[in-house]
Amino acid sequence: MAAAPAAAPARALVSSSSSPSRGVHFCSGTSHPNLRAAAASASAPGWRRRDPAVSVAAGSAQSALGALAVDPKVDTLLDSVKWDSKGLAVAIAQNVDTGAILMQGFANKEALAKTISTKKATFFSRSRSSLWTKGETSMNFINVHDIFLDCDRDSIIYLGKPDGPTCHTGAETCYYTSVYDALQGSKPNEDRQVTITLYSLEDTISRRQEEATDGSGKPSWTKKLLLDNQLLCSKIREEAGELIQTLLENEDQSRTASEMADLLYHAMVLLRVKDVKMEEVLEVLRKRFSQSGIEEKASRNKS
Amino acid sequence: MAAAPAAAPARALVSSSSSPSRGVHFCSGTSHPNLRAAAASASAPGWRRRDPAVSVAAGSAQSALGALAVDPKVDTLLDSVKWDSKGLAVAIAQNVDTGAILMQGFANKEALAKTISTKKATFFSRSRSSLWTKGETSMNFINVHDIFLDCDRDSIIYLGKPDGPTCHTGAETCYYTSVYDALQGSKPNEDRQVTITLYSLEDTISRRQEEATDGSGKPSWTKKLLLDNQLLCSKIREEAGELIQTLLENEDQSRTASEMADLLYHAMVLLRVKDVKMEEVLEVLRKRFSQSGIEEKASRNKS
Repeated sequence: MAAAPAAAPARALVSSSSSPSRGVHFCSGTSHPNLRAAAASASAPGWRRRDPAVSVAAGSAQSALGALAVDPKVDTLLDSVKWDSKGLAVAIAQNVDTGAILMQGFANKEALAKTISTKKATFFSRSRSSLWTKGETSMNFINVHDIFLDCDRDSIIYLGKPDGPTCHTGAETCYYTSVYDALQGSKPNEDRQVTITLYSLEDTISRRQEEATDGSGKPSWTKKLLLDNQLLCSKIREEAGELIQTLLENEDQSRTASEMADLLYHAMVLLRVKDVKMEEVLEVLRKRFSQSGIEEKASRNKS
Repeated sequence: MAAAPAAAPARALVSSSSSPSRGVHFCSGTSHPNLRAAAASASAPGWRRRDPAVSVAAGSAQSALGALAVDPKVDTLLDSVKWDSKGLAVAIAQNVDTGAILMQGFANKEALAKTISTKKATFFSRSRSSLWTKGETSMNFINVHDIFLDCDRDSIIYLGKPDGPTCHTGAETCYYTSVYDALQGSKPNEDRQVTITLYSLEDTISRRQEEATDGSGKPSWTKKLLLDNQLLCSKIREEAGELIQTLLENEDQSRTASEMADLLYHAMVLLRVKDVKMEEVLEVLRKRFSQSGIEEKASRNKS
């Protein structure tokens, strides 16, 4: 009973047995710009690119789902998810480069199937009882690089790169209300995003630059560096030297961690002076890395 | 009506009007080691430490919740969350240093109240219909540094530092099943965690080191660096110099991002040689940063 794919409503995306190929394929007739973008994204060199056993044939965004042809492997995978009594699972969108949790919604089988095939984060709207692809109105799609299920297969991560702000308010993520700030009377503030350590540091350096510009705040080492390129450059050289020394002189691991922290911090001050975000640096690494490029480039430069 | 805290069932954690103080306080009689740890954690210098308007008086872990005394501000905050028809909201635990999504569960009012006060990630188990604090049996607590609500206040992030692996399988996170890997026939693999760019790079460098040790895989630049400390050190110096040059010679931003990527990659190879994780480096930064330490230390060293 459970093995009759065409009978189950959630299997409206029936198997396309004519396509044994791996890889995401879009019909050449794909005409809608969103789908063309999806196709371009899918065919571009990707990060840890895999070839999902999914083939997609669609003529427009509107009819894409109906025309999706899902491989039996996808069907089996969709069946392995522990959908709740409403046919849903939690779906969390995370920025592949920064780790920021962008938003959380719910997916049903169709939403996950569509995300697997189009690589655009797609959810099931409980209020509208319909599928929605994040970005279908704002054009701020979340371009999915990988999808993970949790150990009991009832929670999903869409790991991807957003085209722009994810929140409907225009904020980068939907999470900008700190409970502890709120308890101290602060109003939610879109500039006070949930941030992990690296980006908290980046935020602090940015604030110091604003203070250095308008003369507010206390004197600080960061401000001094921001205002003196020669000092900043000599510090970066010095910190690189101290990191190297921990290797050459076999210093202990805590010393290495500490010197790496120093180097990273000072280099991030330089990024601020140059108005470059860590996210851009990580994007460079991801792209090189996916092409084994960083190794090849470095090797090429040296040999 | 809505302002009568003691009347609502979810307000069993009644206000302790005798304690107008901010900050988390534990009774001196706190005897259970878990609570002592929570108290120690709460009183230690924290990252972006805030003083939640919560006071806690508890004699044991078991009785902690019953004895919790919650400030009216907390009560108001708890009421502002859009709990679903079962009184739940999605709660996602995220590693404050690495950004890794550790697990996802659900919280009810009591679970969120307990997390706010104890700073240990606490959930409501739908299967057992009871509160559970992650780590209460494994001792692998998730020590919460901040809590965020999303824009429509029905999704929660517990941003914290795990004491050890979060997943019941012993894996670092619960998300180790890649959908695209699964579609290519790979079995879930706890070593194949969901990872953002920085940690994917770290993983790749680790794999190259394993290959360099056992002689497997193709020759690569990373392996060459891993096996030659002098080469590695000269490259780090060189990349630091090239990053600096982008500032001194006013090169364009893409050049800065590219040189920073080079420096970060080469420095991460050194971390691998020294068996130091990026997470340790970020922990150093978080701790210094929370004490404004990095600035003060740097300033002290220089002046």
